[in-house]
Amino acid sequence: MRPSGRTSQQIRPVTITRNYTRHAEGSVLIEFGDTKVLCTASVDKSVPRFLKGKGQGWVTAEYGMLPRSTHSRMDREAARGKQGGRTVEIQRLIGRSLRACVDLSALGENTITIDCDVLQADGGTRTASITGACVALVDALNWMRKEKLVKSNPLKGLVAAISVGMYNGTPVADLDYPEDSKAETDMNVVMTEDGKLIEVQGTAEGEPFSFEEMNEMLELARHAIRELMDQQRAALA
Amino acid sequence: MRPSGRTSQQIRPVTITRNYTRHAEGSVLIEFGDTKVLCTASVDKSVPRFLKGKGQGWVTAEYGMLPRSTHSRMDREAARGKQGGRTVEIQRLIGRSLRACVDLSALGENTITIDCDVLQADGGTRTASITGACVALVDALNWMRKEKLVKSNPLKGLVAAISVGMYNGTPVADLDYPEDSKAETDMNVVMTEDGKLIEVQGTAEGEPFSFEEMNEMLELARHAIRELMDQQRAALA
Amino acid sequence: MRPSGRTSQQIRPVTITRNYTRHAEGSVLIEFGDTKVLCTASVDKSVPRFLKGKGQGWVTAEYGMLPRSTHSRMDREAARGKQGGRTVEIQRLIGRSLRACVDLSALGENTITIDCDVLQADGGTRTASITGACVALVDALNWMRKEKLVKSNPLKGLVAAISVGMYNGTPVADLDYPEDSKAETDMNVVMTEDGKLIEVQGTAEGEPFSFEEMNEMLELARHAIRELMDQQRAALA
Amino acid sequence: MRPSGRTSQQIRPVTITRNYTRHAEGSVLIEFGDTKVLCTASVDKSVPRFLKGKGQGWVTAEYGMLPRSTHSRMDREAARGKQGGRTVEIQRLIGRSLRACVDLSALGENTITIDCDVLQADGGTRTASITGACVALVDALNWMRKEKLVKSNPLKGLVAAISVGMYNGTPVADLDYPEDSKAETDMNVVMTEDGKLIEVQGTAEGEPFSFEEMNEMLELARHAIRELMDQQRAALA
Amino acid sequence: MRPSGRTSQQIRPVTITRNYTRHAEGSVLIEFGDTKVLCTASVDKSVPRFLKGKGQGWVTAEYGMLPRSTHSRMDREAARGKQGGRTVEIQRLIGRSLRACVDLSALGENTITIDCDVLQADGGTRTASITGACVALVDALNWMRKEKLVKSNPLKGLVAAISVGMYNGTPVADLDYPEDSKAETDMNVVMTEDGKLIEVQGTAEGEPFSFEEMNEMLELARHAIRELMDQQRAALA
Amino acid sequence: MRPSGRTSQQIRPVTITRNYTRHAEGSVLIEFGDTKVLCTASVDKSVPRFLKGKGQGWVTAEYGMLPRSTHSRMDREAARGKQGGRTVEIQRLIGRSLRACVDLSALGENTITIDCDVLQADGGTRTASITGACVALVDALNWMRKEKLVKSNPLKGLVAAISVGMYNGTPVADLDYPEDSKAETDMNVVMTEDGKLIEVQGTAEGEPFSFEEMNEMLELARHAIRELMDQQRAALA
Repeated sequence: MRPSGRTSQQIRPVTITRNYTRHAEGSVLIEFGDTKVLCTASVDKSVPRFLKGKGQGWVTAEYGMLPRSTHSRMDREAARGKQGGRTVEIQRLIGRSLRACVDLSALGENTITIDCDVLQADGGTRTASITGACVALVDALNWMRKEKLVKSNPLKGLVAAISVGMYNGTPVADLDYPEDSKAETDMNVVMTEDGKLIEVQGTAEGEPFSFEEMNEMLELARHAIRELMDQQRAALA
Repeated sequence: MRPSGRTSQQIRPVTITRNYTRHAEGSVLIEFGDTKVLCTASVDKSVPRFLKGKGQGWVTAEYGMLPRSTHSRMDREAARGKQGGRTVEIQRLIGRSLRACVDLSALGENTITIDCDVLQADGGTRTASITGACVALVDALNWMRKEKLVKSNPLKGLVAAISVGMYNGTPVADLDYPEDSKAETDMNVVMTEDGKLIEVQGTAEGEPFSFEEMNEMLELARHAIRELMDQQRAALA
Repeated sequence: MRPSGRTSQQIRPVTITRNYTRHAEGSVLIEFGDTKVLCTASVDKSVPRFLKGKGQGWVTAEYGMLPRSTHSRMDREAARGKQGGRTVEIQRLIGRSLRACVDLSALGENTITIDCDVLQADGGTRTASITGACVALVDALNWMRKEKLVKSNPLKGLVAAISVGMYNGTPVADLDYPEDSKAETDMNVVMTEDGKLIEVQGTAEGEPFSFEEMNEMLELARHAIRELMDQQRAALA
Repeated sequence: MRPSGRTSQQIRPVTITRNYTRHAEGSVLIEFGDTKVLCTASVDKSVPRFLKGKGQGWVTAEYGMLPRSTHSRMDREAARGKQGGRTVEIQRLIGRSLRACVDLSALGENTITIDCDVLQADGGTRTASITGACVALVDALNWMRKEKLVKSNPLKGLVAAISVGMYNGTPVADLDYPEDSKAETDMNVVMTEDGKLIEVQGTAEGEPFSFEEMNEMLELARHAIRELMDQQRAALA
Repeated sequence: MRPSGRTSQQIRPVTITRNYTRHAEGSVLIEFGDTKVLCTASVDKSVPRFLKGKGQGWVTAEYGMLPRSTHSRMDREAARGKQGGRTVEIQRLIGRSLRACVDLSALGENTITIDCDVLQADGGTRTASITGACVALVDALNWMRKEKLVKSNPLKGLVAAISVGMYNGTPVADLDYPEDSKAETDMNVVMTEDGKLIEVQGTAEGEPFSFEEMNEMLELARHAIRELMDQQRAALA
Repeated sequence: MRPSGRTSQQIRPVTITRNYTRHAEGSVLIEFGDTKVLCTASVDKSVPRFLKGKGQGWVTAEYGMLPRSTHSRMDREAARGKQGGRTVEIQRLIGRSLRACVDLSALGENTITIDCDVLQADGGTRTASITGACVALVDALNWMRKEKLVKSNPLKGLVAAISVGMYNGTPVADLDYPEDSKAETDMNVVMTEDGKLIEVQGTAEGEPFSFEEMNEMLELARHAIRELMDQQRAALA
């Protein structure tokens, strides 16, 4: 049924490689099948202007795709001189999701910047980014503790994310590019370790979706994210 | 309980004024309490480059806030030389929502551009924009039929949108600014006339939300949107 | 003779509505016939860098047109990423005109920013902006006195502005769009309450104009601006 | 009285050097005392998009100051990534003034671009630019006739420009920088060879000016521009 | 002597991995020790405007560094809205170097865009980029031949590049970051397979260098590039 | 052989005019035949942010071409909103070259900005810029000594630059535009007064060049730069 032969609830093989590059305080390559995203977490001992003197920290994210991470080459955003709307939307989503798992007061006046750069795209890059970035964030927080930049652990718990959707009238988990480009609905779900929701972004690309379909997709997401969190914990162990 | 004294399911008084300005093919001032948005629909007898020669039309949206529509003055985006991330996110949401209620093939090679400009802001500007823009869009489509630019009616049905959220642990509908700035969760819901979902964007600003809370918020949205559609139909009558 | 049937010295009906929006310290909708401009005055308790520590204040202006305030839709300047030459020219004119009616030393180290946003355009938007902005400015200055931000009244007197021009070889006052687009000469005149000139900007769009025609246009402007000042005083009463 | 010792109607020594650089169809260095502007006219055998197929030509202008043409170094506009408001204002003024002396229909579908680049500034750069650019334009039009790009002579007559102002309560002609920076009023006047007005831009920098003062300044301008036109004719002879 | 313990002529271990990502016509990860650059070659069946209709093709390059490829995080150029001067300089160098190994007439009206994105930086990223990009280019040219986009082989021969420099008064090959940041002179050399020079860019960062030192550095480069070409040939075998 | 009839080692007539404009601390017009560049040096009593508090100064350069300095008019970079890649490359080269002749510690916390603006181009603008800028720099440093901004002389010695290349298979010095546009190789060489190299940038535009040709070109450069330094010293005498 699905182009990849997967069952509707089956996610792609997930690989999480820590310390993928050398300089960042946290550096994770996450792969969801053919989707590959490099997530780095960089610690900066200052905060943006709007937080100066408030005794709390900040977590923010930036997202980019290498020009030829996609089937046909995309313009390089640096050369065009501006980030596209989709990029802006995605990096705001990643930033909000990660702030949800950090106690910003416990972070002190420090900023963690998460960079999610897509090396190869095959659908689901934003949810892979969040899932990988969470691991890089944990590594960066551990580095901060070792460096005595924070006293208590600012981590409230893991977050992970998955895309679900309606494909040929059926709810499916973890859409790859062939599915994503034809799905009637695409929904990105971000959850915490205790099973609560941080973000739900469902969009009918074709047919609107019913409340029942929404609930079915959410159930698929809940199960998939539990699997992802097992992977995160295994990688961090 | 609520700062405005409203019940949890009670929306603010809604006013829809058609033909608010003179030049646009559709021009609607929509007010949700103190939130006032001018929505115009402009018809252009061409399509963007990526649709040239495909025999279909396009609907797109742009969003802006007057610099002093807000409590303290915001920078003018035209002067800063770029639209902010929030603006980009919102105008993409409005565009997707409106495309969902139009049969783009029936539109011919024409483009309708929706401009949503916030004259005064008190929370819920993006959902007010969608709800008002839908009425302006209907006026523009009617104008196109009169001008023989389209043969059949490209309208698939109305869309409307509402924000719902968790405020002090309780689900409430139609958050105004004092609520919005303190809500734990903010969710924007866009629905069709037959009760299906086009967009659901829920964000935990503070505490994550449970699946049960999500369903309660969706129920509030469903009822509120039905009321909004009564207002839309009354305005169009 | 004139498309509107007005006599050569007759200006359009003028309406000045104070407190048109809620948040700004001064908020005025001014209408010259079908031209409608929202003028807000925002007080900021700081000054631009070049005035820091000099013990004086600043008044500045920004101007914009809603994309569909005009007959056919204009590009949104925020989306294009830059303000056009005409916009820049106009907002500099408005700023200079308003600074002429304020004693900047009496203002203290505060800035008043005037935003003039055209909701509907039918010629004469820059002169309507100046005339309406002056009223918004007075409201903002009164607010400052109430808030004890200024001791003495920084207002030196009212300013108002009108466009005059040569249309079909005859000097006329307050050109509307059909006249403006065909006038041989277009002149914008800004005057003080005691009948002195702040700005005169005359441009031959077609035929050059003689010194005599210039003087006739200035006389028309003098009378029209007196009428406008009656309206300003009535609105402020 | 005047810092330079000039009488109130006395303009600075004016020098007009044709063929100052080699590549342009018209290239003129104009000097008003210490103000030195290089004006080139470039012919392009096409027209801007908005004129395509209308059988007429176009004249446009760009203006710039070398970063150290001024007393203290200004930022380079190319490095800042945008032209300032003053630059935009001036180049629009130059363009309008020169279009006034050309019959655009007789120009054919050709564009003449005037570049006015200030090598050294001492007040009055915009009026020197117009006066010098007119000579460069004549050279370019003559080149076009020789190249058979135009049949009849598109020139309607010369234009020249001068700045006048109120300095220490007295009307003076051709303000240099020390005067310009302290003048109560600054007025730029552009005239045709037959003594008619193309542009009048008077601005009260300090005290507003009376109608009588305006007329006195215009008289000074009329006489000064006659002198400038003698210089233009001599240079072209 | 050298921080890495290498001899003066010893280059770092080089690894060339073809088909590193899936979508590009050529995709190569090249590693010079800890410097890792992903080089992709993308074929586009068109040419830039300035080559339209001339019957020849084009090769161009873009270069970027992931924000945390470096010791401390750099700003993302896409977010800053412009490419820095160093980036511009490098991508022009890469483009010129690769055009030198392709017969553009034999390429037909096709464009090959090389993207060099630095995943991890430890000195020598521009020369690693050229060396890796050449292999990606060969793969893309082979793909074009298989797809019958070209008839004859447009490749004139391999190119490779190395950085050499004066470090502590001694000429050394293949500077890593600790050396590069302290070297007196840094020289990038690009050579062809038959031992000729395409680019030589030597810069004295500290002390100027003598003609003799220049020749010694060039000799080091000649030997190092021969080694690199062995690696290229082995990878392509 | 050469279009100009010069011998292979013969450079064009060079003229160096000091105090060409009035405001800058150093202002030099340099002419290499028909290439004319205005070089100004501006002293600013501060340093860029990255040098604050380090007790040293900075020298930087900017480069521009007047739009009609060239055979056909180029776009004005200020109007396009960005400096081109070639401009960026050149101004970085000029800046590095001049920093090489100044002891930045002896400069104190001051910045000298060199502006090189091409009034007329006929090949070799970047090397003419460096040669002329050096003279302007010396004038600015002398001004600083007179103003007691520096104690000791920060000048380490003169620098000058020449372009050499392979034209019709022969090495030639000081390429003019007709040669430059057809040369197989173009090499820019920057040298110090004691005959050492600061920059060597050789680029094969057509055929790659051999090591022997490189050495021949360097020899031509060495002799030409000695002549240029005679001119510099004569101008400064």
